[in-house]
Amino acid sequence: MSLKIGVIKGDGIGPEIVTEAMKVLDKAGEVYGFDCSYEQLLLGGASIDVHGVPLTDETVAKAKACDAVLMGSIGGDAKTSPWYKLEPSKRPEAGLLKIRKELNLFANLRPAVLYNELKGACPLKEEITEGGFDLMIMRELTGGLYFGERKTEEVDGVMTAFDSLTYNEDEIRRIAIRAFDIAMKRRKKVTSVDKANVLDSSRLWRKVVEEVAKDYPEVTLEHMLVDNCAMQLVRDPKQFDVILTENMFGDILSDEASMVTGSIGMLASASLNETRFGLYEPSGGSAPDIAGQGIANPIATILSAAMMLRFSLDQDKAADAIEAAVSQVLKDGYRTGDIMSDGCTKVGTARMGDLICERI
Amino acid sequence: MSLKIGVIKGDGIGPEIVTEAMKVLDKAGEVYGFDCSYEQLLLGGASIDVHGVPLTDETVAKAKACDAVLMGSIGGDAKTSPWYKLEPSKRPEAGLLKIRKELNLFANLRPAVLYNELKGACPLKEEITEGGFDLMIMRELTGGLYFGERKTEEVDGVMTAFDSLTYNEDEIRRIAIRAFDIAMKRRKKVTSVDKANVLDSSRLWRKVVEEVAKDYPEVTLEHMLVDNCAMQLVRDPKQFDVILTENMFGDILSDEASMVTGSIGMLASASLNETRFGLYEPSGGSAPDIAGQGIANPIATILSAAMMLRFSLDQDKAADAIEAAVSQVLKDGYRTGDIMSDGCTKVGTARMGDLICERI
Ligand SMILES: CC(C)[C@H](C(=O)O)[C@@H](O)C(=O)O
Ligand SMILES: CC(C)[C@H](C(=O)O)[C@@H](O)C(=O)O
Repeated sequence: MSLKIGVIKGDGIGPEIVTEAMKVLDKAGEVYGFDCSYEQLLLGGASIDVHGVPLTDETVAKAKACDAVLMGSIGGDAKTSPWYKLEPSKRPEAGLLKIRKELNLFANLRPAVLYNELKGACPLKEEITEGGFDLMIMRELTGGLYFGERKTEEVDGVMTAFDSLTYNEDEIRRIAIRAFDIAMKRRKKVTSVDKANVLDSSRLWRKVVEEVAKDYPEVTLEHMLVDNCAMQLVRDPKQFDVILTENMFGDILSDEASMVTGSIGMLASASLNETRFGLYEPSGGSAPDIAGQGIANPIATILSAAMMLRFSLDQDKAADAIEAAVSQVLKDGYRTGDIMSDGCTKVGTARMGDLICERI
Repeated sequence: MSLKIGVIKGDGIGPEIVTEAMKVLDKAGEVYGFDCSYEQLLLGGASIDVHGVPLTDETVAKAKACDAVLMGSIGGDAKTSPWYKLEPSKRPEAGLLKIRKELNLFANLRPAVLYNELKGACPLKEEITEGGFDLMIMRELTGGLYFGERKTEEVDGVMTAFDSLTYNEDEIRRIAIRAFDIAMKRRKKVTSVDKANVLDSSRLWRKVVEEVAKDYPEVTLEHMLVDNCAMQLVRDPKQFDVILTENMFGDILSDEASMVTGSIGMLASASLNETRFGLYEPSGGSAPDIAGQGIANPIATILSAAMMLRFSLDQDKAADAIEAAVSQVLKDGYRTGDIMSDGCTKVGTARMGDLICERI
């Protein structure tokens, strides 16, 4: 069986960490009987260098022809990166938003897991996180403020900027269904986060989510205001199973949740469309300050590859094996610098990749 | 000297905690030579009970005639409160938003302070908060998504909701000036938080803030994306002095910051207009579950009264004295239930008020 995987190495540490994920995919393929062929795709800084824009239509077409896309990281150092010569609105952010829209990647899954072995890095007190936590943020990714009309113009002589936030019931329904489906495979709880005491879009959100919930009688639904959710993630992250929310709230809350785990270098993410196609990437950034040094943590990207095998490529066993190998490597005491602690063995990017391969 | 103070007791624990703040104001008046006269104003549930709406024009007019307004808390138990019979968009949220707009309270100050005596309640590990932290959020309160046009209507047969986010340069400038002015009296650092990689309003925000910064060469300005700020508040709250941000981001971040302190019952807030007038209220909610039991923590409201004396009423010495009295009460080991810890003396709402009065 041959799987065609688009690869966006990206900027900063992107190329290094993606290389390790490909190594792990190849090893899993050997063991579980599939073959990966990789197609390199350019996005962000790498695309600007070659094409002058962060994303070309050709790249979009090529991505669509793949079974799934694995991505390193996009973005970079404000001072040295090529795209900072571009207008803000034409920067790789734009490439990222465009690819999300063009590939219709409306469902962004961001797990936030506290690994028992890594609780030393967690900023929260042990009494709060005892036993660990494991939540999944389901962020709507192709609507809301990110894709609304916007403009900046003079109104009565005063410069005025407008952004707009729109959601329709279809957009809300499809992401809600995804969240409930995932919850059914987890602890059967959905916390839908909105600002229904202020926003019309949140009131519609709440209404549609309640309709969808009727088809999932086993799942407990609760509504939470976004300001409260920002508090609860710090106060008691264990209370959450699946958090369902719109694009901008999801951006803020998923980053907060990832920091609450204390180990962003461990967190995968998936962006899915209506089919099985998805784009997979680590939650962390491109870390230009440590790029090229061979010290970046590849685990988030490797776990993203595991998500890809599970959600897009029908290779659940290989996905399980990769996740188990990552757990085993942690139990065996190997750490990259970002998650290093006393008594552990510090390893670089490539060695971490090898250690995980050995355990598959 | 006579000061005319509007009092909105509000819902839930509001009446209890405001009573203690009035007691403390009266004591401070005796010592520092001013006289408070109080005018009761109705907002939220209390106003719905009497007038059927959460805020009348008469209340607005009365509030404007006061030197400042002190408020308990608005909101309540979804099941029992009178306003839950109202349409969502007509609920007390609406009263709160309307009074902010009518009184032009564009500058919302929310301090987040970790008291050394209360670090047991802080959810963050001690190594992160050693030495405590003290940051001030300056949230824009009368613009953005909260006050944009909104509507819900069928578009091509699909129910669609719109909200809009608008800021003009004047709105941004006046709040930025407030933030820099406050920073000058503090540690001279402003972190302006936006989402300039996506929103036009954030790009204008950043531009205007940079212009304002030129008039404050002593103040260090940094820009931070909102998702990153949500992470940094958990990772290292000590890095912040003044956080300047727009309305919705400020709502989320100020609640997160208040939870990071671990003691919301201690946090005051002020909402100011162009003049010295302001509305002062605790950061926490109306806590309907403990209303009427005499156990709520009145300190946030008492500290709000201190902020009122400082910002609106030119009584800095009295404000200092109240803040010192609160610190002393904590040092002396008195605690309400929400901040109780081993070896301390647990007291109720009224006794806490008395203890603070004794120390003025
Ligand atoms: C780079 C930025 C536009 C992007 C977003 O806000 O979606 C990033 O923060 C993310 O969460 O993937
Ligand atoms: C009640 C609600 C409308 C309000 C807000 O969002 O501003 C509250 O959360 C606050 O922060 O004062």
